Amino acid sequence: MKKEPYRVNLPESGMVDYWYNVRVDMKERHDPYLNPGTGKPLKKEELLPVFCAQSVEQEYNETDRHISIPGGVMDYYRTFRPSPLVRAFNLERELDTPAKIFFKFEGGNTSGSHKLNSAAAQAFFAKEQGLKGLATETGAGQWGTALSMACAFYGLDLTVFMVKISAQQKPYRREVMRTYGAEVIESPSPFTGVGKRMLARDPESGGSLGCAISEAVERAVSTSGVRYALGSVLNHVLLHQAVIGSEAKRAMEQLGEYPDVVIGCAGGGSNLGGILCEYMAERLSGKSKVRFVAAEPSSCPSLTRGKYAYDFCDMGHVTPLAKMYTLGSGFLPSPIHAGGLRYHGMSPVLSKLYHDGYIDKAVAVPQNAAFAAAKHFARAEGILPAPESAHAIAAAIDEAMAFKERGERGVILFNLSGTGYFDMAAYAAYNEGRLTDHIPSDGELEQGFAGLREIAANAGQESV
Amino acid sequence: MKKEPYRVNLPESGMVDYWYNVRVDMKERHDPYLNPGTGKPLKKEELLPVFCAQSVEQEYNETDRHISIPGGVMDYYRTFRPSPLVRAFNLERELDTPAKIFFKFEGGNTSGSHKLNSAAAQAFFAKEQGLKGLATETGAGQWGTALSMACAFYGLDLTVFMVKISAQQKPYRREVMRTYGAEVIESPSPFTGVGKRMLARDPESGGSLGCAISEAVERAVSTSGVRYALGSVLNHVLLHQAVIGSEAKRAMEQLGEYPDVVIGCAGGGSNLGGILCEYMAERLSGKSKVRFVAAEPSSCPSLTRGKYAYDFCDMGHVTPLAKMYTLGSGFLPSPIHAGGLRYHGMSPVLSKLYHDGYIDKAVAVPQNAAFAAAKHFARAEGILPAPESAHAIAAAIDEAMAFKERGERGVILFNLSGTGYFDMAAYAAYNEGRLTDHIPSDGELEQGFAGLREIAANAGQESV
Repeated sequence: MKKEPYRVNLPESGMVDYWYNVRVDMKERHDPYLNPGTGKPLKKEELLPVFCAQSVEQEYNETDRHISIPGGVMDYYRTFRPSPLVRAFNLERELDTPAKIFFKFEGGNTSGSHKLNSAAAQAFFAKEQGLKGLATETGAGQWGTALSMACAFYGLDLTVFMVKISAQQKPYRREVMRTYGAEVIESPSPFTGVGKRMLARDPESGGSLGCAISEAVERAVSTSGVRYALGSVLNHVLLHQAVIGSEAKRAMEQLGEYPDVVIGCAGGGSNLGGILCEYMAERLSGKSKVRFVAAEPSSCPSLTRGKYAYDFCDMGHVTPLAKMYTLGSGFLPSPIHAGGLRYHGMSPVLSKLYHDGYIDKAVAVPQNAAFAAAKHFARAEGILPAPESAHAIAAAIDEAMAFKERGERGVILFNLSGTGYFDMAAYAAYNEGRLTDHIPSDGELEQGFAGLREIAANAGQESV
Repeated sequence: MKKEPYRVNLPESGMVDYWYNVRVDMKERHDPYLNPGTGKPLKKEELLPVFCAQSVEQEYNETDRHISIPGGVMDYYRTFRPSPLVRAFNLERELDTPAKIFFKFEGGNTSGSHKLNSAAAQAFFAKEQGLKGLATETGAGQWGTALSMACAFYGLDLTVFMVKISAQQKPYRREVMRTYGAEVIESPSPFTGVGKRMLARDPESGGSLGCAISEAVERAVSTSGVRYALGSVLNHVLLHQAVIGSEAKRAMEQLGEYPDVVIGCAGGGSNLGGILCEYMAERLSGKSKVRFVAAEPSSCPSLTRGKYAYDFCDMGHVTPLAKMYTLGSGFLPSPIHAGGLRYHGMSPVLSKLYHDGYIDKAVAVPQNAAFAAAKHFARAEGILPAPESAHAIAAAIDEAMAFKERGERGVILFNLSGTGYFDMAAYAAYNEGRLTDHIPSDGELEQGFAGLREIAANAGQESV
């Protein structure tokens, strides 16, 4: 037996019972959300018809560093948390790297991803508020699955608008949601105004995340006792995901380890935003020199090739404006298999941290490289990663090889946010050499940026 | 926070490092395997061309109570063991039962089941013996997936003969195996004599587990440096699975709990045989009055409606004869979704224990009842169970309700052997009311029993 443990399972008795609010530690806060109609900062009250009241509170909370996790959420967290911190001994040996590679494994629950951390909180808030149910959208399916599980646990109704093409490509994801009691509606649907208009224009439309968001919001605001829930991008979602990083830090401390670099994949930001929180606080206060790396898909490179500007959070322009790294809400990313990273923008908090230099590096990973890393990892460590998480693995392997080239010891921590059990069609495409790498041309990006200039003009902002 | 923990994760530093050999404690050993040609007890040497030498050693070992797990196997076990023992608090509350319900969760690894415990051992033995690779068959896919992972870890080739109809129904299971580097061949195949004969008779054959076993054995014995590996039924497989029960017992002791009843689903026996071992030893020695319940499918009721007799382990009659509860190797079970329980016989060790009254009860569960229990459990406890494990859940719920009716406190422990992520087509059928319960008539069973009488006559045994 090796003396150093492979996995650290924190004791349940000492579970992390707070969400760490990294915004309190930021040198500067992110620019406020704007009402696109007035160009003025969005007020809390404007969000109350859409989201649960407690989610809105948290969205605006920039003063409480540790926010207690309610007992009712802890009751549910106990069914799948703490999640293990794992040392990738086998991968290290195969890479022959002097670096230690640790990962936080968030895929051990049935939803197969970290999304359950925020689903639990949002469903609990809905229950506490006396609501009847929630509405949401899902693309790749992780978020919809997580919210289905949480709503089953708390006894809430749930309607999931699932992007039609995804529902057809991933019928088993849909079936998991149905098994947990959710109503799954293919989007565009004939049940909302947005959906009807979309279908009138194109009856064969496969849908898009933007359209599904709009349908879910419409359903929520037009149905008594129902609110909308979102699984990424927003502050309160990142807050709930902070439990990942707080647990990781505690487990690393138990091993006497401190990371030189922390890595997460980056779509809307819930993944990287989840693992970096407490380490970021130490970096911001000057206590630590830990570096942060965001791994995004080459096909949807909001950090590496996007603009830092005000933009809509959705393609249907029903949401407020957020200042963030974005490719423009009109940019349509290629249909890659890491559907969870296929988002035009990036969390305003992470965008601000990146803009101010506290997230040190963003790397764009082509999907073939991501799957190569995933397969390498699966064979060495057993766990079959989600395509999204594979981007973080690819970045972690690159960092490990860089330590090797420099002849330096180093400690790498990455977030293994999910498993790939429902992504085997994607693995098949990779195994059979059928995957293509989609890298948008400058011309393609320019179309999205044109929309940003228009938004800036309308909102009275400097042009981008 | 409740004071009693939800999950017990045993510390890695105190991992169970032995396989408990329950045969040493049995009052009487099971009758020997017979060579079907001679009717005489099978010699070790006759198995050496088929299985790894170490597996054969263990198959015959009735003297060593604790068999050390080799360091090379422990290295792999550390990537997915110890598995958690979980208290089903939410299910208890919903059932309003005074009984405590615990389960050992073996589905947390990527193979999605307990099968990896034996796959790790058998692949390690092959590596140590200097073999090039292994051959096996898979029906439902759990065993094939597990052995693919283990062979990837130890750097061995693997050929999996997958029942054609299963491969077509579960393309994603096949893809997981391919991702871990296994060659997956649909059975019947044109690559073996058995397969060719089968295809000549019926080119459209969807195959059967019996045929796939025969193809895998043929491939193993006819290929230099390759042996065959089996995932259930045999003594050495049950031995490897004993790690489940040893861990469960240690975790229960940590909680100060002792079960009144231990439950496992029963197909070939690796599941129930895995969890009962050390508790059975205490029952056999008179230290304990713990009861044991086997949960089998109504469609394939070897314990509840079978005969205790000598039979072939496969439909193709290439294996030795084993004394076991069996429906006859000619019995063709209906195509239920719990493919892992669709086996005509039962482990000789478990058969003997049942025959001698140490396994107290066998219950036959119709598949609709199994899925109803699975869905109830999933919503309460989060985990989506495999259809096989659902049989144990159904039995556990029945036991919990019986404690409630008697107004008795009680402690229930069951083996949650796997997850249902690759069984969503089955859940869809259940969700849509399309599942039928297949309960064989006495006439259907009689066909299988006729074969048993013939075997008895040929082997010079008393008729059944």
